[in-house]
Amino acid sequence: MNDAAKAVVLLSGGMDSCVSTAIARERQGVSNIALLHASYGQLTEQRERRAFDDIANFYGVGQRLLTDKSISVPENEWGAPGPRGSAIPVTYVPFRNAHFLSVAVSWAEAIGAGAIYIGAVAEDSSGYPDCRPEYYRVFQELIRAGTRPETQIEIVTPVITLKKSAIIRRGIELGAPLHLTWSCYQNEDTACGACDSCLLRLRAFAEAGVPDPLPYRRTVSAGQ
Amino acid sequence: MNDAAKAVVLLSGGMDSCVSTAIARERQGVSNIALLHASYGQLTEQRERRAFDDIANFYGVGQRLLTDKSISVPENEWGAPGPRGSAIPVTYVPFRNAHFLSVAVSWAEAIGAGAIYIGAVAEDSSGYPDCRPEYYRVFQELIRAGTRPETQIEIVTPVITLKKSAIIRRGIELGAPLHLTWSCYQNEDTACGACDSCLLRLRAFAEAGVPDPLPYRRTVSAGQ
Repeated sequence: MNDAAKAVVLLSGGMDSCVSTAIARERQGVSNIALLHASYGQLTEQRERRAFDDIANFYGVGQRLLTDKSISVPENEWGAPGPRGSAIPVTYVPFRNAHFLSVAVSWAEAIGAGAIYIGAVAEDSSGYPDCRPEYYRVFQELIRAGTRPETQIEIVTPVITLKKSAIIRRGIELGAPLHLTWSCYQNEDTACGACDSCLLRLRAFAEAGVPDPLPYRRTVSAGQ
Repeated sequence: MNDAAKAVVLLSGGMDSCVSTAIARERQGVSNIALLHASYGQLTEQRERRAFDDIANFYGVGQRLLTDKSISVPENEWGAPGPRGSAIPVTYVPFRNAHFLSVAVSWAEAIGAGAIYIGAVAEDSSGYPDCRPEYYRVFQELIRAGTRPETQIEIVTPVITLKKSAIIRRGIELGAPLHLTWSCYQNEDTACGACDSCLLRLRAFAEAGVPDPLPYRRTVSAGQ
């Protein structure tokens, strides 16, 4: 029932998901990919949405789905940051990726796609519990348990074990439009160059030995 | 970090979730329960929302969360019904409960609840893949894999092995407001008495040997 050649690709508009899209396009063919973008009240929602549109247009992908408010928890009820020294960053949104994957699975079922690509990165960036390989192994089991017997949907995490700098190099090899991505958590016009996400990105470009195509308001030299 | 006495209870407004709410109230205490209702474009959305409010008011539960559009799949893209003779009904919404449970887990994390009650029923009503005990076993594992190490959230399925008639009897024992529930998939004013959901409900009341407190437009005698 599901077509293994057809894939739903989660595309936030950041580098990891952009390179995952490039990989999905290479493996599945551009006419077989469907792009899914989730807004959930993040600060730079509009800018990420534009990055999504720009990347989708760059590849000429017509089948797109925008989902919003998928995490409908009142803002003042988010849990307090973890204990000091905890490995989990304060930007952690509890169980966030389960919301995105649930939409992706429902959409994959609806359009008969046999794969879901998600640009989760385990080691080099986040430390979020829902970015680890173990989490995707269990989610794969949940799809098996929670869908029709004939449903076959594979979760693909093409960059999960890569360092950010390796993701950049892979993206450049594939001609991924890194200049259209957005990573800054703070600004929507010019990247701040100071938030965690900008710092990770700048460090990764420095490690990869290539210039970041985005302009920054303030550039901290690598290593600082 | 999570308080085992505190519970998020999924309340659609139907009988199964109403009785699950009554059980949660008995076990956890009314001041410890938080009620979650999801709209997802179902035909009788407004009526179910009213049943949710009525039941919440009956119990005097203040902490409530409404979530909508959690399944943001265009209507014309839902998969075709399964093959003729398939055990899965055509009302199957692919992976629906994963959306609800994801919101429940995020909210439980946010408010520090240690339990999630869901009125899934495995045998007597649905045949949905995401209503079986195995599904909840895997979802429990997903919570472990996808949340902070200190998070302890237990999924409770208090009526999963019960027949509908036993759920009604349990509800009556607990004084659950079955007269405030809504089951009809078709109408919002007077229950149709003819849709699958009405027929299952009427048959269950007949088996339980008690009258259904709801009026019906058309009542099919049990067994027909």
